[in-house]
Amino acid sequence: MHGAGNDYVYVDARGQERDWPALSVAMSDRHLGVGSDGLILALPSEKADLRMRMFNADGSEGEMCGNGIRCLVSFAFDNGIVAAEKSQVLVETMAGVLDVTPLRDDGQGMVGARVLMGEPRLNPPDVPVAIEGMDAVIDEPLKVAGHSFRMTCVSMGNPHAVVFMDEPVDEFPLTEIGPIVEHHPLFPARVNFEIANVLDGGRTIRTRVWERGSGITMACGTGACAVQVAARLNGLAGDRATIALPGGDLTVEWPGEGEVVLEGPVATVFDGEWVE
Amino acid sequence: MHGAGNDYVYVDARGQERDWPALSVAMSDRHLGVGSDGLILALPSEKADLRMRMFNADGSEGEMCGNGIRCLVSFAFDNGIVAAEKSQVLVETMAGVLDVTPLRDDGQGMVGARVLMGEPRLNPPDVPVAIEGMDAVIDEPLKVAGHSFRMTCVSMGNPHAVVFMDEPVDEFPLTEIGPIVEHHPLFPARVNFEIANVLDGGRTIRTRVWERGSGITMACGTGACAVQVAARLNGLAGDRATIALPGGDLTVEWPGEGEVVLEGPVATVFDGEWVE
Repeated sequence: MHGAGNDYVYVDARGQERDWPALSVAMSDRHLGVGSDGLILALPSEKADLRMRMFNADGSEGEMCGNGIRCLVSFAFDNGIVAAEKSQVLVETMAGVLDVTPLRDDGQGMVGARVLMGEPRLNPPDVPVAIEGMDAVIDEPLKVAGHSFRMTCVSMGNPHAVVFMDEPVDEFPLTEIGPIVEHHPLFPARVNFEIANVLDGGRTIRTRVWERGSGITMACGTGACAVQVAARLNGLAGDRATIALPGGDLTVEWPGEGEVVLEGPVATVFDGEWVE
Repeated sequence: MHGAGNDYVYVDARGQERDWPALSVAMSDRHLGVGSDGLILALPSEKADLRMRMFNADGSEGEMCGNGIRCLVSFAFDNGIVAAEKSQVLVETMAGVLDVTPLRDDGQGMVGARVLMGEPRLNPPDVPVAIEGMDAVIDEPLKVAGHSFRMTCVSMGNPHAVVFMDEPVDEFPLTEIGPIVEHHPLFPARVNFEIANVLDGGRTIRTRVWERGSGITMACGTGACAVQVAARLNGLAGDRATIALPGGDLTVEWPGEGEVVLEGPVATVFDGEWVE
């Protein structure tokens, strides 16, 4: 399944004991395995409708994935893990219990979802970003490899540095600059790096993401949230914007306070049986 | 399934009419589809045990794939298209009828195959390579972007230029030089470009391939054949060599004349149902 091009293999893991990190490495290989950004498990939960565990392609466990959690709810409906008529699904993750509202097409089943992604944190030690003497890092200078940027730093549970630029993001050398920003000494936990062009008076924000530990990806849910938060804080967008990513569009609402709402599509590509 | 990392989606297409080029494009996408190098169809044949059609990831139809044909025979056994006890399978392709001998592990089913790949053609107009006045292009100079190579040109149904070098192939800038060789005016039909290090006195040849129209790939069956032919012609290898490619090892026999025999593994990764 994929959400805006962010593709995972989804497994009904109820009652199964496996070496999940090893399975994620094997399955994620795009030539020798199924090919994915990682593995996402549907598990029972004592405090929510289901529990999500996710493993990256390198076998490391992730806390949460904003694109993956939408697909997981669709997977849970299709496989009878959660009653298909539910209008709200609570999902336990390592980042807390998240509230997912499925979006349905008449008679077509679930086509997308809205996810309450929690409140952004801006306080520098919370991001974390090693800048002292300010409550939030908004439109502050960042110099990297001869480029001078203005960055806004946002934690959505993971750290983001957002840079708005006039240069078309599609022409920016992100492969070269992304890893330098990720490992910049300002970011003690490294950082996800978003570059963005504000279009249509802030209704659309064309974005590319360098993901910490993954490199360039087709879409990043928390990255899209961070871009809307940063745009709102800088007066570049209103309460809601479409974040246009290489893998598709995500819509993010954040009116200046409270929880960020991420809305995006889900797609089931194929069902299969892993051969061992 | 994959053969040395060369991965295709295999479909039992008997009695099915589809827009195969469009399906290959959709399925091959590594984020939005299944993810593969292309699509290979099993079809009935009037003159062989089955017929192979193959489509590349861009939807174009290919003549034959030395790694794919092995997997196709395994697929045909597993799906009852060809009787599982057969010790020789004839496969009709756009490059002619090819003879495949399955290799079986005791009780484990088919693990690999030997394929008679036809005779190499060396005559320059047959490759094609635009060099006049010689019967074969063996150890001839090729100058590209400041690099001076000695190349040997071989057709295995498709054109190959093989370069042996002392520099470790893993350190060679193939991404940069590959496309320049592919489009060099010496090659009117473009060319597949193999770079190779001869090891163990010619028993092993470490190889990387720039495939015409595809770029760097994990393995290329006809490329492995061309490397053994070129090594034998240059006195660098004996009648048989292991061609060590990024996706795995292939073994090629060519004793200086007759058909080239390609031997390599097959692996089934998952079975599935495409959701539309």
